Amino acid sequence: MSLLRSVDKNIGAIVKKGRDDLIITENAYRESKKMIASWEEGIRKLQDRWRREGLTQEEIDSLTLAHSHLTMKIQAEIQEYEAIKRGEFDMTCNFENIGQQLVRFRIWKGLSQSELAERLGVTPQQVSKDERNGYARASSEKIRQVLEALGIEVTIQPAWQTASGEK
Amino acid sequence: MSLLRSVDKNIGAIVKKGRDDLIITENAYRESKKMIASWEEGIRKLQDRWRREGLTQEEIDSLTLAHSHLTMKIQAEIQEYEAIKRGEFDMTCNFENIGQQLVRFRIWKGLSQSELAERLGVTPQQVSKDERNGYARASSEKIRQVLEALGIEVTIQPAWQTASGEK
Repeated sequence: MSLLRSVDKNIGAIVKKGRDDLIITENAYRESKKMIASWEEGIRKLQDRWRREGLTQEEIDSLTLAHSHLTMKIQAEIQEYEAIKRGEFDMTCNFENIGQQLVRFRIWKGLSQSELAERLGVTPQQVSKDERNGYARASSEKIRQVLEALGIEVTIQPAWQTASGEK
Repeated sequence: MSLLRSVDKNIGAIVKKGRDDLIITENAYRESKKMIASWEEGIRKLQDRWRREGLTQEEIDSLTLAHSHLTMKIQAEIQEYEAIKRGEFDMTCNFENIGQQLVRFRIWKGLSQSELAERLGVTPQQVSKDERNGYARASSEKIRQVLEALGIEVTIQPAWQTASGEK
């Protein structure tokens, strides 16, 4: 079953990719779509082979279950990226997830990491690094600068004010 | 006019105090109230003396105008502190004034700088220093910790969402 091993290896690469490179750039987005397409092609070939070897549909399904789950997971990430680009995401955040939100705001505003870096006067590598670790340990001044560079004005208010107006 | 010089010296001390120690602690609040009271006493004595020396009310008013302005300024600060304690202030903020807002939140929650320091596991001196410089260069993680210690949950959202719901 060297084909299955080869598919497993590909899956390993995708899982690793999923961990290292979240889909937060156009490149990662295009690469992920290509990878899913080629991987689905590989699975189809594998299933044909298993069918020729006489495996039942149930056996084939159980063998490809983990792979299907992974495909769905990556497709969900692709769809999420597309939704963010359309501005279809919850824009509310707090001091715990403001870093992740800054990444979404950039994608939504249609700016690449390099374009944001230019506006901030830092290297694209710096923005890439900041985004990959969710702007961990960023100063509030830095967050303010990124929001300004993205042309986004935010308001911060006690949670109950946004909910019910009560203390 | 040595009494006027003495009053001027007192005013100098108050102005300096106003710059160094904003009214953000119970101590500063009580000290400011005491200072205003004793200073008003001084001004009354000065005015009596001027009257005995034959100055007109207009002359006396013009001599004490600057002093009156200063008294009013400090009284306004005292009233602001009292309003914050009652929770009567705009709780909305942004990444430019979040630092000042953290000070107001603490006063409103009725915590002293020492009590906040204890909850944060830092020295009262650290909190005092942070508050005096408006939490400049504080990390978003630090801001999150202070908010948590104060028991305040905030939401951050694009400004237009709080205003009109439009992008």
